[in-house]
Amino acid sequence: MLHLYTDSSPNGFKATIALEEMSLPYRLHHVRIETGDNRKPDFLALNPHGRIPVLVDDETQVVLFESAAILLYLAEQTGQLLPADIQGRWETIKWLQFHASSVGPIIGQRVHFELAETVPNPAAIEHYRRLTERAFAVLDRQLAQNRYLAGNTYSIADIANFGWTHIARIIHFDFSHHLHLSGWHERVADRPAVRRGTTLPAPATGA
Amino acid sequence: MLHLYTDSSPNGFKATIALEEMSLPYRLHHVRIETGDNRKPDFLALNPHGRIPVLVDDETQVVLFESAAILLYLAEQTGQLLPADIQGRWETIKWLQFHASSVGPIIGQRVHFELAETVPNPAAIEHYRRLTERAFAVLDRQLAQNRYLAGNTYSIADIANFGWTHIARIIHFDFSHHLHLSGWHERVADRPAVRRGTTLPAPATGA
Ligand SMILES: N[C@@H](CCC(=O)N[C@@H](CS)C(=O)NCC(=O)O)C(=O)O
Ligand SMILES: N[C@@H](CCC(=O)N[C@@H](CS)C(=O)NCC(=O)O)C(=O)O
Repeated sequence: MLHLYTDSSPNGFKATIALEEMSLPYRLHHVRIETGDNRKPDFLALNPHGRIPVLVDDETQVVLFESAAILLYLAEQTGQLLPADIQGRWETIKWLQFHASSVGPIIGQRVHFELAETVPNPAAIEHYRRLTERAFAVLDRQLAQNRYLAGNTYSIADIANFGWTHIARIIHFDFSHHLHLSGWHERVADRPAVRRGTTLPAPATGA
Repeated sequence: MLHLYTDSSPNGFKATIALEEMSLPYRLHHVRIETGDNRKPDFLALNPHGRIPVLVDDETQVVLFESAAILLYLAEQTGQLLPADIQGRWETIKWLQFHASSVGPIIGQRVHFELAETVPNPAAIEHYRRLTERAFAVLDRQLAQNRYLAGNTYSIADIANFGWTHIARIIHFDFSHHLHLSGWHERVADRPAVRRGTTLPAPATGA
């Protein structure tokens, strides 16, 4: 049995969307960040960094944190959403990784300075708006030439990036001027598994 | 033939160290960030994000950016520095990914505010010192129980993290109070391939 420890948040939705897309049976454990569940010893034993999502596979005894590692694991174990040919495989991992290192952490820092930090820091806000804009522009350019991030087929690279564009929409980090990125976002948002995944363990709010 | 496009920098050293460790023949292309080589059309055709390192494999026609994707590719193609058993494999990918998403980007942002930004931003500096310290603490804790990040054997997870601890030392982002992390750093720094890798295409300076 697969166990997913998660909360309603961008990195968490990547895992719930992937599990729903792959029609895998799993048990959902709601780790409430707001009440500090992610700082409790039981959870820190799974991830010493105190972050969701965490995936535990009872069968293989694999315990994984980091959403990109979880996506890759689910794809490899099921043979789904990751092309088997060498070029498709690495195109997918490249865009998964671009998200994991160059998009997610940057939007995360923008959230910190724009929404979480109580003392306004206009220079930091400006810095992260610029970097977010640059990351969105790279995605937009790739999507001008490809229906999905890694080519013609939907993959874990799309799921990873969607986790954050879904939240960007909710918290008004506007990317509507990137027409290809916006079109791709709508296409992905329309998938039934994506609609289910973004309500687990609960729909996100702008809070 | 493998072609590596890189500069003397933390993310670049991950790739040169891995290539040296694996004794792979490759051609080194020096992309000078200082003079804007990474913004030229030829380079942007390889990586629209304009960042090094980039790996091109003539044989498979795979073109990769993102250092973590490059490390994984080299490990899988050669069967080196990534355990073949399922638990070892995912332990390694987890710590590779922890670096790629939760360590590298954070130190990178600290470099920006502490060394690159001309207008001092004490709040942002403080924020990134705190986050870097938290990331180092997670690594230290893991290395208190394991000789290398993913267990008993040296892997691409170590190479990824070393790329940045090497630079942290040079630019005085102190982690000497983390004794296990420091001991691990020395162990890795002593490897001949690591010593070669960190001088390619040129040794790093504190600039
Ligand atoms: N790079 C990690 C980031 C995980 C992360 O930052 N998760 C957030 C929720 S989206 C979290 O658990 N935050 C709780 C905290 O920082 O205390 C991943 O992709 O899984
Ligand atoms: N997440 C990327 C980061 C790559 C990156 O930021 N590279 C730096 C050098 S370490 C770079 O090319 N900087 C040039 C610039 O930002 O213009 C990776 O791991 O490869």
